[in-house]
Amino acid sequence: MKKLSIAVVGATGAVGRELFRVLEQRQFPVSEIRAFASPKSAGKELHFRERGVTCRTLESGCFLGTDIAFFDVSDALSREWVPRAVREGAWVIDNSATFRYDADSIIIVPEVNGHELDRRLAKGALANERERIICGPNCSTAQLVVALWPIHQRWGLRRVVVSTYQSTSGAGAAAVLELRQQTQDLLSDQPIVPKHFLHPIGFNCIPQIGSVGQDLYTSEETKMLVETRKIMNLPGLPFTATCVRVPIEYCHSESVNVELDKPFLEVEEIRAVFREFDGIQLQDDPGRGIYPMPRTLGGTDAVFIGRVRRDPSVKSGINFWIVADNLRKGAALNAVQIAEQLIKKRVF
Amino acid sequence: MKKLSIAVVGATGAVGRELFRVLEQRQFPVSEIRAFASPKSAGKELHFRERGVTCRTLESGCFLGTDIAFFDVSDALSREWVPRAVREGAWVIDNSATFRYDADSIIIVPEVNGHELDRRLAKGALANERERIICGPNCSTAQLVVALWPIHQRWGLRRVVVSTYQSTSGAGAAAVLELRQQTQDLLSDQPIVPKHFLHPIGFNCIPQIGSVGQDLYTSEETKMLVETRKIMNLPGLPFTATCVRVPIEYCHSESVNVELDKPFLEVEEIRAVFREFDGIQLQDDPGRGIYPMPRTLGGTDAVFIGRVRRDPSVKSGINFWIVADNLRKGAALNAVQIAEQLIKKRVF
Repeated sequence: MKKLSIAVVGATGAVGRELFRVLEQRQFPVSEIRAFASPKSAGKELHFRERGVTCRTLESGCFLGTDIAFFDVSDALSREWVPRAVREGAWVIDNSATFRYDADSIIIVPEVNGHELDRRLAKGALANERERIICGPNCSTAQLVVALWPIHQRWGLRRVVVSTYQSTSGAGAAAVLELRQQTQDLLSDQPIVPKHFLHPIGFNCIPQIGSVGQDLYTSEETKMLVETRKIMNLPGLPFTATCVRVPIEYCHSESVNVELDKPFLEVEEIRAVFREFDGIQLQDDPGRGIYPMPRTLGGTDAVFIGRVRRDPSVKSGINFWIVADNLRKGAALNAVQIAEQLIKKRVF
Repeated sequence: MKKLSIAVVGATGAVGRELFRVLEQRQFPVSEIRAFASPKSAGKELHFRERGVTCRTLESGCFLGTDIAFFDVSDALSREWVPRAVREGAWVIDNSATFRYDADSIIIVPEVNGHELDRRLAKGALANERERIICGPNCSTAQLVVALWPIHQRWGLRRVVVSTYQSTSGAGAAAVLELRQQTQDLLSDQPIVPKHFLHPIGFNCIPQIGSVGQDLYTSEETKMLVETRKIMNLPGLPFTATCVRVPIEYCHSESVNVELDKPFLEVEEIRAVFREFDGIQLQDDPGRGIYPMPRTLGGTDAVFIGRVRRDPSVKSGINFWIVADNLRKGAALNAVQIAEQLIKKRVF
């Protein structure tokens, strides 16, 4: 297999570091890895397969000779540098929101809509550079669509209501440290000053992630709505989300209520469909205290599902609870899965 | 005003202690206060209005001469001692689940169904001792029905979907200490052993509160369903709940999705109805970071509501977020409000 030249942009961030780990763990065919970070982190030494990788700053020409560039930086940086990277010949897998909502962009979660990427690749010679930009989804969306897709295929989705319990790692590595330090300070009655969050996060729930729009939904809630519809190709799907930051280090949890189009007879049918789907791991024996929980699932790859039960308040209703590592399935792992699909389709 | 002889059963528990505070703060007319606790806590000295109150154990005759006995103990203890207390002449306000679901019992949240208590009292001479038992609701139900009631009165409820974010204080004072100690141990990489919860609660979400029933709902979720319907006198209300313990010390939060029967035009109408309702405090300016959060609302009396917004995924849908002190509106305060209603109706 041809080994590839890889660039990781945002290499010292929470997702960037996770990307290094995922590439190692999945024995991704790497010939060369370039790490890009802010000027502040330039010169910093990272490790990939026990070799040192020195962080560099972005500059003109830095993507020449690169096969794939993973971007995990701010929307503004992606807007500036992603087009340059494709112009310099790279495929870009961008985890920012910058290009996700453009009509000609694709947001790929391989288990769900990998076929859309295949379709684009099957067109052969790519019409323009833009087609070499592939977007990764928002972290809370990634795990949700993996859970929704198999039940949609079998029964159809009529409506989705979701409430999230999102960890601090979604706001970056420094935000996890803030949670830890702030909690420590609260436990020892020290004064605290929020930095990464608008409010103290230690022993608190903050019902706001991102900015607030005209419709009173936060940007995180709107991302979940728009991206779920786009990834599943269900443009009119009735969907509503409430996104909440909770004092957790890693993994996002979601309480999901779904109305199905067609009836099911037994909860066990739903469970079976989850169980058989690649990318989902069922942990569902609540009477024995078995269900997914965020504290123990950091570093895992699957979307974990539990508490599956009938919701008798509506025709063909179900409730369930999902947990996934937001840095992995929500970002780094999903990006590498996209790259693996490119390899499989002999893009390089 | 006649001063009353009060008994607090479970005086050293989280709710018992809060009861003492609420009775003081509301200048409840107390002539005498008797504190009952487990043999382990007997002899312990509490304080009420700067006078010492020595904890005693329950014994035959201990309620003689008592006007009101507040019970905040296990279902088993309530089952044994509540009937004795009414037999010895007391009115009982019982926060356990023991009698809540009996056909002839009433669960009272004064703002919502205080009229049912009035109706019972208006019958004059009380037919039997059982009628002197008044149940308080489950904590997560109390704050929910206060929020639902005014919008039900105005528009009617068609369906309710709720996900909770419940604090450790709902499991008792020792559970809060466990959260703090466990979090401290996690921060310093010490081993932890869960005691009050089935799983570690530090930096974790546990999607189980109470035991798990045949229908795969937890007892907490079933309580919310049954009690919401009973208190609001809506026996067929389509309702579903997911109850989750989060690493918070005080206050329960709830993400609520509601379908209304009749249409509303503007979100501001919903807000106005909340704003005008006694017992609700609106904190709803998300663009300025204003919404209720559990960390800062311990010790308060109102049900706080924010994030009110239209849910376009269904006809006449709304989402909102509610926070209340589960030890106060969810238990101690609600019980004292019931007692105040008895006084107002000249029961004593």
